[in-house]
Amino acid sequence: MKGFSERADVEDVQAWLAAETAPLASETVQLLDCVGRVLAEDVSSQVDVPGFPRSAMDGYALCGEDTFGAGAYDPIQLEVIGVSLPGSPFAGRVSKGQAVRIMTGAVLPEGADAVAMAEVCSEAGTKLEIREAVAPRKNVGHRGEDIRQGDTVLRAMRRLRPQDAGLIASIGRATVSCVRRPRVRLVVTGDELVPAGSVPDPGGSQIVDSNSVVLRALVHRDGGETLPFAILPDRPEHIRETMAAGDADVILVSGGTSVGQEDHAPRLLAELGSLDFHGISMRPSSPTGVGRIEDCPVFLLPGNPVSCLCAYEFFAGPTIRGLGGRSRAWPHRRVRLPLRRKLVSAVGRTDYVRVAIEDDTVVPLATSGASILSSTVRAAGFVIVPRELEGMAAGEPVEILLYDGDPEAIPTSSIETGRMS
Amino acid sequence: MKGFSERADVEDVQAWLAAETAPLASETVQLLDCVGRVLAEDVSSQVDVPGFPRSAMDGYALCGEDTFGAGAYDPIQLEVIGVSLPGSPFAGRVSKGQAVRIMTGAVLPEGADAVAMAEVCSEAGTKLEIREAVAPRKNVGHRGEDIRQGDTVLRAMRRLRPQDAGLIASIGRATVSCVRRPRVRLVVTGDELVPAGSVPDPGGSQIVDSNSVVLRALVHRDGGETLPFAILPDRPEHIRETMAAGDADVILVSGGTSVGQEDHAPRLLAELGSLDFHGISMRPSSPTGVGRIEDCPVFLLPGNPVSCLCAYEFFAGPTIRGLGGRSRAWPHRRVRLPLRRKLVSAVGRTDYVRVAIEDDTVVPLATSGASILSSTVRAAGFVIVPRELEGMAAGEPVEILLYDGDPEAIPTSSIETGRMS
Repeated sequence: MKGFSERADVEDVQAWLAAETAPLASETVQLLDCVGRVLAEDVSSQVDVPGFPRSAMDGYALCGEDTFGAGAYDPIQLEVIGVSLPGSPFAGRVSKGQAVRIMTGAVLPEGADAVAMAEVCSEAGTKLEIREAVAPRKNVGHRGEDIRQGDTVLRAMRRLRPQDAGLIASIGRATVSCVRRPRVRLVVTGDELVPAGSVPDPGGSQIVDSNSVVLRALVHRDGGETLPFAILPDRPEHIRETMAAGDADVILVSGGTSVGQEDHAPRLLAELGSLDFHGISMRPSSPTGVGRIEDCPVFLLPGNPVSCLCAYEFFAGPTIRGLGGRSRAWPHRRVRLPLRRKLVSAVGRTDYVRVAIEDDTVVPLATSGASILSSTVRAAGFVIVPRELEGMAAGEPVEILLYDGDPEAIPTSSIETGRMS
Repeated sequence: MKGFSERADVEDVQAWLAAETAPLASETVQLLDCVGRVLAEDVSSQVDVPGFPRSAMDGYALCGEDTFGAGAYDPIQLEVIGVSLPGSPFAGRVSKGQAVRIMTGAVLPEGADAVAMAEVCSEAGTKLEIREAVAPRKNVGHRGEDIRQGDTVLRAMRRLRPQDAGLIASIGRATVSCVRRPRVRLVVTGDELVPAGSVPDPGGSQIVDSNSVVLRALVHRDGGETLPFAILPDRPEHIRETMAAGDADVILVSGGTSVGQEDHAPRLLAELGSLDFHGISMRPSSPTGVGRIEDCPVFLLPGNPVSCLCAYEFFAGPTIRGLGGRSRAWPHRRVRLPLRRKLVSAVGRTDYVRVAIEDDTVVPLATSGASILSSTVRAAGFVIVPRELEGMAAGEPVEILLYDGDPEAIPTSSIETGRMS
């Protein structure tokens, strides 16, 4: 048994990962699946939207000039010669003295250049009385008013919103090119582990594998997809085979990652590729390892559930987001509140401290054990104590990264107050 | 043709919806599908986690009392009688003068009450030398230290986090009871519409249906699922049949919702159930209608794409979230920044104003047309001008609700600064 002779700084490992990984290649994505994906192309429109001049009101299409001088006491009379409905345009032409009844969104008939609102008109038989002058172009949406043919409507590397997908539909596209989702291989080892969904033997030595459950959800949050998964026994030949399979963009190994006699993963990674970092100056998760096998970044995450979560968040999460074209930044919502009591850390070490929020203050949770998953369930979020600090004083405002994405987790009167960088 | 004789206030419609809708019944959800879902039960543990006392270190399990007085110059010698590995516990008992080599997470053998770290020990053959006293219980995690049998670990109505699913796994559960996801029926009508993914006829009168694309994504964001969908022609008998099908928790009708001659939905809703509101004092989306058919809330959303989005966000979104057990609050991230120029509204009317963020200021987008979907693509988010205000002055700090959930959309130096309510 041996300890870590030296430990890397969190920032150095993060910087190495950022330099070593770039967004994956693109793939074709169906329109209905594109929201939340990252565009891999500039999208330009081949068409005008709308493709025709249309009415912005329910009313009457006419020649504006015909109505000049109209007023409540000087109504002007026109002849109604037809109807234009959405999807059922008026086939003829509107000449002077004529009008066509028209619905919002319907094609403006040829010859007409304005629409009078229904409210200022009275129709009787084929006669129409208008009590207000209507200037040419009034209540008319011109062809291409939303999007013009040739416009670049969306830029590559944008994460698509619901309305972006609507826009893509409206220009007649059925697919778009998006950055491929990173495929993530989970390698979870441990002879003591039984699969999630099992009941551990009462009083025995079994532990239910929870890490794969948490990691799957985090990978999904970060835009990745997980490959088929099974717990591996602590046997080097099995672990090696899975790590060397070559079908993943990212490998997450949980368990067997430290320097003990059953910790095979570091040696296997060094043999199959490179173990670039092993032992990181942080708490928890100090036994974390990071390396690569060919182009595939490999993360050796400690088996303790809190350490596993923490190491994922610091190193694997940003990498998966970056490979998928997303921002590497922490995806958590944040609030700033004062510390209830001081936080003790050590200079040179980065701490991930689970905290509760009570009475507008931040309360570090007493249980800091890396094996206590329930602490991350009780916590509202976490505070990062950077390596430059030996702690933070009581009363000091600190930034909390919230575990919940839901708005109810945000103090209701708080909002992000911003300056653009 | 007729206008709206009176318009309801946004807040009144929202309050009615909140009073009329409650979370749906529960359903059984598989462990791997539960993240992001809302719990419908209190979850208690039937087991201790861990189910055995375990080592928190790589080292040697022993009787702490044996080591009292040990020091660098007074090492104490013990006999190593075996090994305890995770999943492979030592079968015997540790007596005075004995030790068992042990790995992190392995079962503490009977008789032992402490673990000496490997770093303070030297092993040679079966002899172990310890250079530091180890108090009883040192480096030992007791049975149930994470979770005790009978503990309530998660409360009903909690939205499950990744680590919550890990916790549920660790207590041996394979399923949990969650609030059912609302089933949403989209009823999109319009003879001018062609399905998303089609190319509109050049220069013709067709429009691609983008509303269903946007609505599907918003429903999904809000925790609902959409039922199978097809565009309906503007024929009352088809619309009636779809609205009356009775298979949905929420019905969203887009198009044909105003007071024009082709606007069948309001009359059909009144016949099938009740049209409780029609015409709302807001911009855009004023032709919105809200009602119900039996227990099912029905939203008549305007066909114009920005109006459709806006009406969804004000009325349908909160309802779908509430039915699914989530918070009804706006799910958007928020920032507060000063207005570049004044915003003009009207007392008594709620405005939804698309805005850009430029140079740390909020710039209302000049194009306010309800038909201009591209404005919601160009915008960073929106500002709500409440009905009490006739506008907002230049320089005034306003709250922007951001369209993007991604952290890169947040001004990087900004964070939510909070007070709990």
